[in-house]
Amino acid sequence: MDANELKEKSLKLHENGGKLEIKSKVKVENQADLSLAYTPGVAYVCKEIEKDKELAYKYTSKSNMVAVITDGSAVLGLGNIGPYGAIPVMEGKSILMKELAGVDSIPLCLKTQDVEEIIKTCKILEPTLGAINLEDISAPRCVEIERRLIKEMDIPVFHDDQHGTSIIVAAAFMNVARLTKRKLSDMTVVMSGTGAAGSMIAKMLKRIGVGKIYASDITGVIDKKKYDSYNFLIKELIDEGTYSTPENHDGTLASILKGADAFVGVSAPKLVTPEMIKTMNKGAIVFAMANPTPEIGYMEAKEAGAYIVGSGRSDFPNQINNVLAFPGLFKGALAVRARKINEEMKLAAAKALANIISDSELSPDYIVPGAFDKRVAKAVAKAVAEAAIETGVAGINEYNE
Amino acid sequence: MDANELKEKSLKLHENGGKLEIKSKVKVENQADLSLAYTPGVAYVCKEIEKDKELAYKYTSKSNMVAVITDGSAVLGLGNIGPYGAIPVMEGKSILMKELAGVDSIPLCLKTQDVEEIIKTCKILEPTLGAINLEDISAPRCVEIERRLIKEMDIPVFHDDQHGTSIIVAAAFMNVARLTKRKLSDMTVVMSGTGAAGSMIAKMLKRIGVGKIYASDITGVIDKKKYDSYNFLIKELIDEGTYSTPENHDGTLASILKGADAFVGVSAPKLVTPEMIKTMNKGAIVFAMANPTPEIGYMEAKEAGAYIVGSGRSDFPNQINNVLAFPGLFKGALAVRARKINEEMKLAAAKALANIISDSELSPDYIVPGAFDKRVAKAVAKAVAEAAIETGVAGINEYNE
Repeated sequence: MDANELKEKSLKLHENGGKLEIKSKVKVENQADLSLAYTPGVAYVCKEIEKDKELAYKYTSKSNMVAVITDGSAVLGLGNIGPYGAIPVMEGKSILMKELAGVDSIPLCLKTQDVEEIIKTCKILEPTLGAINLEDISAPRCVEIERRLIKEMDIPVFHDDQHGTSIIVAAAFMNVARLTKRKLSDMTVVMSGTGAAGSMIAKMLKRIGVGKIYASDITGVIDKKKYDSYNFLIKELIDEGTYSTPENHDGTLASILKGADAFVGVSAPKLVTPEMIKTMNKGAIVFAMANPTPEIGYMEAKEAGAYIVGSGRSDFPNQINNVLAFPGLFKGALAVRARKINEEMKLAAAKALANIISDSELSPDYIVPGAFDKRVAKAVAKAVAEAAIETGVAGINEYNE
Repeated sequence: MDANELKEKSLKLHENGGKLEIKSKVKVENQADLSLAYTPGVAYVCKEIEKDKELAYKYTSKSNMVAVITDGSAVLGLGNIGPYGAIPVMEGKSILMKELAGVDSIPLCLKTQDVEEIIKTCKILEPTLGAINLEDISAPRCVEIERRLIKEMDIPVFHDDQHGTSIIVAAAFMNVARLTKRKLSDMTVVMSGTGAAGSMIAKMLKRIGVGKIYASDITGVIDKKKYDSYNFLIKELIDEGTYSTPENHDGTLASILKGADAFVGVSAPKLVTPEMIKTMNKGAIVFAMANPTPEIGYMEAKEAGAYIVGSGRSDFPNQINNVLAFPGLFKGALAVRARKINEEMKLAAAKALANIISDSELSPDYIVPGAFDKRVAKAVAKAVAEAAIETGVAGINEYNE
């Protein structure tokens, strides 16, 4: 489909007032129905919850309700288009959560880009919500907002742009290790992009055992010599040892790709050339996820000698698509009334995702499952729920699929 | 159904996680669907809206989305039970809006009872919402909140507890006049209750031409001699001439009911005795709407000589139920993208509601339509939409049913 056709078809699909509607799960056709679902019967339900607010999970839609919250400051690759322009993306996330995992969700696009106001608003909205999916909020504000909310709220708060991709990239690397029989601890990964997604991918890769991670961004190679010039997030990753400073580099991405085992890009189109791929170690792994145009195309990377290539694109193998993680993740967290989505739960999601693909199926062009693989959300949900129970953040200590 | 049975059945109805779910209006079953409903196609829709935020009405669920917002400070007759306990009521309103008028809505119960925070939160939520239904917020805070939001927001804000009942009571009085061939201007109405609902009923009755309105509340008869002791709302109704001060009274409701033509109660159970009804003018009209136990029961009032009796109860004739107004009202306002719900629109709703009942059908026990009369929401929506267009608050100057 060319760009014009895609535009026309997409506008057409949306023009009847968007993609979402609210439905009643119970019938209200007559006075008897009304007296149970509304007054006077509903008063008994209200009084039960007043006595024990935990019962809101049993008796209300809170149990399965996610708010997809954005301020429109970093929407897709479109930048700061504001909360109105962001609505169609949030509705898209909502329908994916429903269709892939049965999770109800509602987009709330906020008319503020003030960090404190966003935090305050989310906290005020807590009673009706089972969880919050933060979305498309610019870095590094998004990190501060998510961290504060995780600390200050009693429901799971998850910023998909930070952690969604990191879970899938971690799964991909687990499968790279399985396929190539290499140890992650022996690998050097070069990252391009130090924003929200890049930072959390780096942390996750370190957590699953990747040996060395070098990073670069628009300022050049991340080097502890320039420590004072970095934002709090880059400083944090240097401090905790996630980012290493390469011994020899001239500030360019090209200079640190030499001899590296893997490239992970969440940055900008066409930053990587075939010549750069050729300087990498044999059997190079390339995840070039800039959207819609990757850092280097699938064919180019392959022709330059890369062994495994993934991107954000659906028209090439190994699509790193967030829909692989968030629907199952929220399903699992909600099912056991988790208070948080912690590191163990994200790691469990990555493992479950990786293990969807059997040893015999695993191949350089089949490192991560497809976006519409029906097994994915189910497996992720189960793993996340069990990890929540094991780490003591669940409100219910049993998972029923 | 006795109270225990009602309680058990209502809890049972709610125990599978409440009454609401979110549905996708479009299918997302494969990559092609995903590319239109989500990335990359959705980016074109976002960009259109970024250029003209009015297009959010065309391309997103904003067009038909109401938030039912409360702080849980005055829920049903249960008082300040907080935002968690309030959820089942708000979900009830949501399903009624959908089932009776096809309007989508989402409950948002706020974890704050601070007037400024409530106002701020509503304003921040504007982008995704087509309208706001304020609900069960205590008086007189609710009046301040609604007035500020109407002034400061670009979408309709309607506090149902204030105006819903007033629209239906106005419709009832229009039909009283039609049935009894009496002029409203000749009538003296005695009100019991000066809260949000009572105040707005009084204003509406004055607006449709009722001659004289006396009021009483927990402090006794409203008398301009005690002006300084009243809250801003009672002062306002005295100032504008809505409330008159009775010439002879001893401070009691009984003393002002003598010789009155109608009683309207939104106060407390059993405040009115048969003896008090007997002192009223011949053909007395009694709307006793305290819930669940009215100021005086249907049978008692009838036996004491009342000609027309209505209440909030579904098990007696003339149920004054807010579901007669709000679903159609929001449907009409949303359909023409009204920026406000103004007095003319509320009046149009009352007239449409009254006129559902033909001259030949009209009787003392059939003054207002039944809650499940399928004609109601349709007629109210049309009248409201046309009034919005006529008064210049509509964004679209055509109403398609």
